[in-house]
Amino acid sequence: MAIKITGTGSWIPKSIERNEDFHQHDFLNVDGSKIEHPNEVIVEKFKAITGISERRYADVQLTSSDLAFLAAQKAIDDANIDMETLDYIICAHNFGDVKHNTIQSDILPCLASRVKHSLRIKNPKCVAYDILFGCPGWVEGVIQAQAYIKAGMAKRCLVIGSETLSRVVDKHDRDSMIYSDGAGATIVEAVEGNDGILAHETASFTYDEAYYLFFGKSNNKDDQSDTRYIKMHGRKIYEFALTNVAQAMKDCLEKSGVPVGDVKKILIHQANEKMDEAIVKRFYRLHKEKVPDGVMPMSIHKLGNSSVATVPTLFDLIRNNKLENQQINKGDVIIFASVGAGMHINAIVYRY
Amino acid sequence: MAIKITGTGSWIPKSIERNEDFHQHDFLNVDGSKIEHPNEVIVEKFKAITGISERRYADVQLTSSDLAFLAAQKAIDDANIDMETLDYIICAHNFGDVKHNTIQSDILPCLASRVKHSLRIKNPKCVAYDILFGCPGWVEGVIQAQAYIKAGMAKRCLVIGSETLSRVVDKHDRDSMIYSDGAGATIVEAVEGNDGILAHETASFTYDEAYYLFFGKSNNKDDQSDTRYIKMHGRKIYEFALTNVAQAMKDCLEKSGVPVGDVKKILIHQANEKMDEAIVKRFYRLHKEKVPDGVMPMSIHKLGNSSVATVPTLFDLIRNNKLENQQINKGDVIIFASVGAGMHINAIVYRY
Repeated sequence: MAIKITGTGSWIPKSIERNEDFHQHDFLNVDGSKIEHPNEVIVEKFKAITGISERRYADVQLTSSDLAFLAAQKAIDDANIDMETLDYIICAHNFGDVKHNTIQSDILPCLASRVKHSLRIKNPKCVAYDILFGCPGWVEGVIQAQAYIKAGMAKRCLVIGSETLSRVVDKHDRDSMIYSDGAGATIVEAVEGNDGILAHETASFTYDEAYYLFFGKSNNKDDQSDTRYIKMHGRKIYEFALTNVAQAMKDCLEKSGVPVGDVKKILIHQANEKMDEAIVKRFYRLHKEKVPDGVMPMSIHKLGNSSVATVPTLFDLIRNNKLENQQINKGDVIIFASVGAGMHINAIVYRY
Repeated sequence: MAIKITGTGSWIPKSIERNEDFHQHDFLNVDGSKIEHPNEVIVEKFKAITGISERRYADVQLTSSDLAFLAAQKAIDDANIDMETLDYIICAHNFGDVKHNTIQSDILPCLASRVKHSLRIKNPKCVAYDILFGCPGWVEGVIQAQAYIKAGMAKRCLVIGSETLSRVVDKHDRDSMIYSDGAGATIVEAVEGNDGILAHETASFTYDEAYYLFFGKSNNKDDQSDTRYIKMHGRKIYEFALTNVAQAMKDCLEKSGVPVGDVKKILIHQANEKMDEAIVKRFYRLHKEKVPDGVMPMSIHKLGNSSVATVPTLFDLIRNNKLENQQINKGDVIIFASVGAGMHINAIVYRY
């Protein structure tokens, strides 16, 4: 038996927010002081590090569960399955449904219930729940689907990552330029064969790292409200990820028994281009190898960081030939890897 | 191999909110109109249906993840385990950390990460994530722990249910009297033997029922803010639960192969005394049996409805001889059952 991804779908919002759209923002340091450089310089520096030139924001009338539903429908169509045969719907996110221009996260009911409702699935035996696991939530959802299949509790699961980070950003924080909205969905199921998921690795670093990403106040000290936003200690995350993601990928590859030379693609969480490049470089250095050309497809330049949605969206784009010079062929070994709030890290070695 | 609960702990807040404390509230109907009866009558009628005479509210400086941590510590002590050997920390809740007098749910990082951080666990291989599954979240967390153990991915898991519903109630809604705060935690692990979890059953009813519990505006129409609160369609939930929870318990018992006469205790989600009694009555009627005396221990009278926390807290109270005339002996068959937002239902048949 193999556990494979038999269908993918993604929902990329149409509304584009370009780097130039931030030129009028009033960026402040964490202590509330004015940043000395002009915005044009701040934005250029940002682009040089993260690779991001534009990002997508969800339509104002849509919430994260709507994006999840739209991506899910595509994944179901792609897998060409009867959705009433789904045993699980697992929805990964970080902030629930945040309506445009409001500050509350709506997670009652859970987003997976909303998606199942919108899909008009009747079968009550299809269990719909949400997982909160930072940006690695979709990868972890796939690992959980694998557990249910191995335990004999499921045969077919829908695993979604959906997020509307544009609704939780502090406009006075330069990091607000990183975040984006989107959803990716996949059908994970038991099929004949010996390919699919070959190994997985998960780690939660919480001793010192639990609050590297957190919910905090605006950089604007004039804002006396209680409102909190997504916040991060970028430098600490960079250093943490460089060491630990590379190591987790190496551990996972070792478990799979696949030689590093057979790895055709690394689909890594689109967090920050320079960080992702450094992680992949470190991964190959641990194997005393050079980074192969084109091994790390990136979508961050145009899509930004949509948290849980980046990896399944990237996978869907490649499968649908929507990423230039990138393709995956039958038999190719892929590594899915992610890192994010928690701090959680995970990786899956997968034979396509 | 058996999958057993080897330790329990709970955190019951000290602060008691009595029914009389609601006598000065300005209760309104959903349409904003004044309720005709005096508050004393409203509160008495409420008590007659729900059984609740008082409930607990968390100390103002504590959040849901603090309660979860306090309960978890007790469960770890009770099981007498080295917490560094935990493979998973699964935290069930519905609203994340809501600070006193604020309206935002803080779920970044996930609560399980916060608990692991507070426990000072170092082992990164201990995976910490949150599950959102309505009130049945703790029961479902145990079912997920079982999956990881069966799949060979874990041996020992900490499963917690924690909630501070007092932070999300609409004071103008009579249903606000139902809700309470608390946390229950359990160690679930693989041990020798053939007892422990014998069978489980889970169902998600979303076609018509997804929004029976929802996040909605205040009954006070003068409140022009966007603030939303926990809301429910009580009558619909009652009818839904009566039919479907009794059936799920019956299906689960059938799977386990245990005759109904062997069931010693039913630990059901403390939602509403009259509803819980009706469910258990229906369950026995489906078996053409009468409800045995004392089969359904209740904590709702003094503790109210603390969502995900009720079932593990009830179990912990009985194990510690803190519930009058209630005890569980080795070999006793217990049914854990729950129902809540989603709408989700689940049950576990368990040999103690």
